[in-house]
Amino acid sequence: MNTSSNSTQYALGLDFGTLSARAAVVSLQDGHEAGSAIFEYPDGVIDSRLPGSGVALEKDAALQNPDAYLAALEKTIPAALQKAGVTADAIVGIGVDFTSCTTLPVLRDGTPLCRLDEFRSNPHAWVKLWKHHTPQPEADEINALAGSRGEELLGIYGGKYSSEWFFSKLLETVRKAPDVYGAADRFIEAGDWLVWMLTGQERRCISAAGFKAMVVYPSGNPESPWTCPPDDFFRSLDPALTGVADTKLGREYLPLGASAGGLAPDMAQRLGLNPGTPVAAANIDAHVAVPACRVSGPGTMVMIMGTSTCHLLVSGEKHLVEGMCGVVRDGVLPGFWGYEAGQSGVGDSFAWFIKHACPAEIHEQARQQGSDVYQLLADQASELRVGESGLLALDWWNGNRSVLVDADLTGLILGLSVTTRPHEIYRALIESTAFGTRRIIEAFTSQGVDIHQLVACGGLARKNPLMMQIYADVTGMPIRIAASDQTCALGAAMYGAMAAGHFSSITEAASKMAHLEPKAFHPDPEANLRYGELYKQYIHLHDYFGRSADSPMKTLKSLRRRTDHS
Amino acid sequence: MNTSSNSTQYALGLDFGTLSARAAVVSLQDGHEAGSAIFEYPDGVIDSRLPGSGVALEKDAALQNPDAYLAALEKTIPAALQKAGVTADAIVGIGVDFTSCTTLPVLRDGTPLCRLDEFRSNPHAWVKLWKHHTPQPEADEINALAGSRGEELLGIYGGKYSSEWFFSKLLETVRKAPDVYGAADRFIEAGDWLVWMLTGQERRCISAAGFKAMVVYPSGNPESPWTCPPDDFFRSLDPALTGVADTKLGREYLPLGASAGGLAPDMAQRLGLNPGTPVAAANIDAHVAVPACRVSGPGTMVMIMGTSTCHLLVSGEKHLVEGMCGVVRDGVLPGFWGYEAGQSGVGDSFAWFIKHACPAEIHEQARQQGSDVYQLLADQASELRVGESGLLALDWWNGNRSVLVDADLTGLILGLSVTTRPHEIYRALIESTAFGTRRIIEAFTSQGVDIHQLVACGGLARKNPLMMQIYADVTGMPIRIAASDQTCALGAAMYGAMAAGHFSSITEAASKMAHLEPKAFHPDPEANLRYGELYKQYIHLHDYFGRSADSPMKTLKSLRRRTDHS
Repeated sequence: MNTSSNSTQYALGLDFGTLSARAAVVSLQDGHEAGSAIFEYPDGVIDSRLPGSGVALEKDAALQNPDAYLAALEKTIPAALQKAGVTADAIVGIGVDFTSCTTLPVLRDGTPLCRLDEFRSNPHAWVKLWKHHTPQPEADEINALAGSRGEELLGIYGGKYSSEWFFSKLLETVRKAPDVYGAADRFIEAGDWLVWMLTGQERRCISAAGFKAMVVYPSGNPESPWTCPPDDFFRSLDPALTGVADTKLGREYLPLGASAGGLAPDMAQRLGLNPGTPVAAANIDAHVAVPACRVSGPGTMVMIMGTSTCHLLVSGEKHLVEGMCGVVRDGVLPGFWGYEAGQSGVGDSFAWFIKHACPAEIHEQARQQGSDVYQLLADQASELRVGESGLLALDWWNGNRSVLVDADLTGLILGLSVTTRPHEIYRALIESTAFGTRRIIEAFTSQGVDIHQLVACGGLARKNPLMMQIYADVTGMPIRIAASDQTCALGAAMYGAMAAGHFSSITEAASKMAHLEPKAFHPDPEANLRYGELYKQYIHLHDYFGRSADSPMKTLKSLRRRTDHS
Repeated sequence: MNTSSNSTQYALGLDFGTLSARAAVVSLQDGHEAGSAIFEYPDGVIDSRLPGSGVALEKDAALQNPDAYLAALEKTIPAALQKAGVTADAIVGIGVDFTSCTTLPVLRDGTPLCRLDEFRSNPHAWVKLWKHHTPQPEADEINALAGSRGEELLGIYGGKYSSEWFFSKLLETVRKAPDVYGAADRFIEAGDWLVWMLTGQERRCISAAGFKAMVVYPSGNPESPWTCPPDDFFRSLDPALTGVADTKLGREYLPLGASAGGLAPDMAQRLGLNPGTPVAAANIDAHVAVPACRVSGPGTMVMIMGTSTCHLLVSGEKHLVEGMCGVVRDGVLPGFWGYEAGQSGVGDSFAWFIKHACPAEIHEQARQQGSDVYQLLADQASELRVGESGLLALDWWNGNRSVLVDADLTGLILGLSVTTRPHEIYRALIESTAFGTRRIIEAFTSQGVDIHQLVACGGLARKNPLMMQIYADVTGMPIRIAASDQTCALGAAMYGAMAAGHFSSITEAASKMAHLEPKAFHPDPEANLRYGELYKQYIHLHDYFGRSADSPMKTLKSLRRRTDHS
């Protein structure tokens, strides 16, 4: 094992996000990003019509083209090496992080079904992105069955298995596209698939398997300590699912930071890298941020803030927490129970506001001031006192992940009047996401999981000090900010370095490569008190719309569904 | 009385709206508008700072400058005569309609207090416009006292006396500006004040007095059959109010269409009219629309659709209806009980949406298509099926007038998601106002007041066929549209003609001068059925937010009030 601080050594972090992928060349010595390149997927998120065939998609569908991921490798890696002025020899290892649960059906050799003429115009043959929200009925069915059988998985998944996850998406394919299901030799996480394409070997990581694909049952096998629910569970769900775990999924799972194999020769040549360069098992984008935020144990919650926010933390004990996304042993940091929770719409909702609900006058004003629209709104919003706008929002523009786990929930703004102005709405949207985070924190702390400080990373955290102060004021906790502009790419590189044997643990990698900004955001006690009153109202609305059986939100969604078919 | 159809005879209708005033020269023969002119009040609605002094106003304040009304007379009347090619001799009478309840404090000679240096910088010395919403606490107090005394006025005002009305505004002045109250010889409706300025004589009309100023108690005097509550009611409200009805208000009230006197010589000269031209007693803007919509009896509800919507109808009987604005004998049409209800924010909310929440992209698209933003949105919105957007709104951008009578209620949009587009929100706002109208209709019909068809007038009704079809579909009733672009000015002119003795009744004037468009909007049974389901959800939200004691809307408003003083 090489732990010397050779300044010419680097790891390559490959970070696959919702709209783009990034390759970063990161120094093993101090985590410095020597060069990086980004590639935007040409079709972005496919949510209206399939490229080529023009087949119309259901509302709430969100697909991607897997070939865009391969294109991203070729576009970003050579460019990042060139920018860094680094040759293939200096790259000791490669790490991959990916959005999750993002899945696709493939043939035995890894060929995506959507690449075949036969299935090109079938939406279910494409990659179902994490925010593909149509399989809510399938998730409901899974939850009903698991509940009636008293399956342990419900507790481990916070009481509800999400429509965003592996088997909800897979069951949707069984029901709506049985031919696709039949033709698929494998259903696989896109991150695991990408590692397969890099190494030529199908190797899955425990992380996504544990957090999304029900690999949470003790198997008795010390090499692969967890497995899926028993086959009769799947058979009861649908006879077509008989044997699914054995036939269509992998059965072995690599731990975090393990090497999934060396870079395959043909791929090495296409990417300008050395064949055999170790590739780490794929990890979830948000999860790699934990060590990259220098978190090595309990008490600190990491918020990875982008289009959505992921909340990650670890604890020495296993607790069952309402609405968490999951609790997986060794799933986030070795030796701890790793917990994930999340908010489905954060940056996404702000971007929606800017594009679809922010008036021309604000854009014009920003232009005149030579400012950016976000900055102008933040400047105006920072003048407001807590509660002054009279607005309150529910942050469910993408449904609710934690703690309600319900994609059928929708956004709400209350308190609107003819005197309401855009910066007030903007601040109310930010506040609503802060309230959502506080609700998640309380779900953990009320069950005995310690959280007393926050670390935030991602573009929103670094660019929006107003937002960070609001989060500190709403939660009453200090917040530190990760120093890297690309925390996930950094984390992926750290795992790449670990897979190459350069560090003995991810914590050791963190102590060298990860840094925090010196400035912390501290809660203002007065603002915290006032937010406490608004938060009570948030919880009032949260429970009324999110928990009641006759919630108008749910009824409206079902009325809307009916119009899809009329 | 001259009932000949002399084609050279005209009446002058003066219509004072929220943002502008209009003078129309209208033919007595067929109601044709020969010429008109409009004047926008230079300060519009004063809702932020007082002109001149820059004194900051409370949130929800809405003031005006009375001198703008006088300026409007001079700017519009000569211009309208000129456009019509008509001389002063051809004008047989003048009618005035005005927003209501819009009030001001004046000296014994009619001088507005805000014109005096001493009170120029005191907001309470200015005109309080109908939508001046700060006196909600005062209205609450009036309702509590009237309730505890079992005063009849509560029933007559639909169970609640509104913050928009005469004594709420007056009590606010007593409490917040006792010096203004003390210095005022009179508190008067702006319409009555304008007639005073025209004729030189203080003459009040029964209409605003009955509908807004508690003139609803039998007095035993056949000439003035109604009077205010007994003085001890006012004394209990505040000792400063002792004797208010006798000392600060008028005591005699003219019936609708009566002459308030002839045009004063100095005013005639300034306006280019003949001195002595009969001026009708002032009427409420929405009320004059009833005969101008050719309604002469029960069964038809008139909707006057502008910034707000007023609903007017008559019945042979007196019924007490929740949340109506009032029921006044002879108050709308002679011989009937006149009922008013209303929605505080309609065109206002749409205008808010266009200005403050409609994105640049829509304005750009409209520009490129050479279209108007409203038209573009309407075109896009008309493609949507009922329920397709998944959105539902509560139409309370200006509070709720009927049936909840609560200025503290606010607007709400539910069902928002990152896929929500502007035309969907626009349609949801239109639908919310249609649901609000249906709720009002049901309040009447459930108490035995017949409504089986609607007539709409105002700019919104004439320009927005999508809106009219949605109203027909939501209410399940056919809708006719008034043919005049200026129904209120026409109605005012009709009353001017009546005051001049040209017609023996307003119904006779209507049969000559008022017309409807030939096309009616008929409800689509399928859409009506689907809207029935959305309406159930609207009612769910309406009652939850509007009636429950711990409504988050009310709490947010009180938290917001606290920030005003922190």
